[in-house]
Amino acid sequence: MCELLRINCDRGVMLADGKTRFSINGKPIYHFVGTSTFSQYTVVHVGQVAKISPTAPLDKVCPISCGICTGFGATVNVAKPKKGQTVAVFGLGAVGLAAAEGARVCGASRIIAVDVNPRRFEEAKRFGITEFVNPKDYDKPVQEVIVEMTGGGVDRSVECTGSVQAMISAFECVHDGWGVCVLVGVPKKDDAFKTHPMNLLSERTLKGAFYGNYKPRTDIPMVVDKYLNKELGLDMDKFITHSVPFADINKAFDYMLQGIGLRCMIHLDA
Amino acid sequence: MCELLRINCDRGVMLADGKTRFSINGKPIYHFVGTSTFSQYTVVHVGQVAKISPTAPLDKVCPISCGICTGFGATVNVAKPKKGQTVAVFGLGAVGLAAAEGARVCGASRIIAVDVNPRRFEEAKRFGITEFVNPKDYDKPVQEVIVEMTGGGVDRSVECTGSVQAMISAFECVHDGWGVCVLVGVPKKDDAFKTHPMNLLSERTLKGAFYGNYKPRTDIPMVVDKYLNKELGLDMDKFITHSVPFADINKAFDYMLQGIGLRCMIHLDA
Repeated sequence: MCELLRINCDRGVMLADGKTRFSINGKPIYHFVGTSTFSQYTVVHVGQVAKISPTAPLDKVCPISCGICTGFGATVNVAKPKKGQTVAVFGLGAVGLAAAEGARVCGASRIIAVDVNPRRFEEAKRFGITEFVNPKDYDKPVQEVIVEMTGGGVDRSVECTGSVQAMISAFECVHDGWGVCVLVGVPKKDDAFKTHPMNLLSERTLKGAFYGNYKPRTDIPMVVDKYLNKELGLDMDKFITHSVPFADINKAFDYMLQGIGLRCMIHLDA
Repeated sequence: MCELLRINCDRGVMLADGKTRFSINGKPIYHFVGTSTFSQYTVVHVGQVAKISPTAPLDKVCPISCGICTGFGATVNVAKPKKGQTVAVFGLGAVGLAAAEGARVCGASRIIAVDVNPRRFEEAKRFGITEFVNPKDYDKPVQEVIVEMTGGGVDRSVECTGSVQAMISAFECVHDGWGVCVLVGVPKKDDAFKTHPMNLLSERTLKGAFYGNYKPRTDIPMVVDKYLNKELGLDMDKFITHSVPFADINKAFDYMLQGIGLRCMIHLDA
């Protein structure tokens, strides 16, 4: 979270000299959020490099980064559901599925997923999700539906969409007295999170998690080691539905945009 | 926090039969928030009675209730500043002063108080407050002033005014990464707490505390015992500036409304 290396979508240049390291026909290619890893070789700031075990299979562990750390960590490190508790997950992209996996690993008894795309529901059952709610099926706010389903609200919720309306619903569906809502999705620039303060005074907690509260340089190698030692509890294979060679990278983006529960691996043929 | 006994400003009647126990000339006198204790004898629901040690001096321990529990508990039970941390307290009424006392007891190194009434500052120094900020002295939002004063934000903030603008400022003045803001003041019916979700994603925490997270029936007797055993750390005498007999109750309200750091005891001559 330091000022220097904080995710910055606008900068696009290296910190040392304010320039890019790539170009094509003399035109600069900018460094997106400081990583720019869709290439066989790259240049990043030293603070953004994490060295992982050389025995780790790269085609399995590479999703242990933004997607999985962000969702899984938001649940296991921040929301921290207790065994037997009820968890709502908003959004069934890779981040939301990883959040649901986190809830399963923590021993949640009910995992309620919310998504406006019902085509995602069938495959998501493999992630331990027990109930699905499509907000479009109701003519009242989805938080009211969940409060009714659970007799008062869920114990924990994790918002993984970036929609500010989903953030508000995720917060307002947790139980008074002890409910914790964790925001994960990245909002738009002019969004405003809005709720009646009474929803807070009734002793709910609202938090955000950045990168699942993992510290990349020290924690990614640790998470990879846990995965190698089968201590993570998380089944990585479920997170990879397609593998495409680098030349087909745009096909991978198409799969993602179709949003039917497809998550991709891109092979960088070095 | 149970539905049955939850504070309810509108009900005004007993739960058993929906009627009042008091009347004057045939007109009902309603039970305000289930207590109605401005009388020598009263009738309340059994769930709202706490039995305290018979050795407790009533003229000292009676403020251990809404005011002190709410503010002190919000800091020691919910915000939980660590030794050496910086705490901002919004509002210097009895609740805010009790919150500041809590910060002092927790070992905070800087306690920054925010109030629009500078006449409250002098007396508030007795509560361990180290710095005062009057939002009216600046032409930028007070949260920006505090972030600058502290080089990034306070570790904890406790909002004790009920103004939704103060709530937003209290939240936005805590440090990214670990800052915790606790809302205590009771908002107006149509207020909306509003902030950019990025302020949450940067790993701040927003909570509310009701009655300082104390459970009245079990915790008030415990807090009174701690006070009697001098384990509370809180100096009760500082919280009583005036004592007036019951016949002068309206004078006490006048003192309060003058808002110059006066807090009153009303003696009920039984």
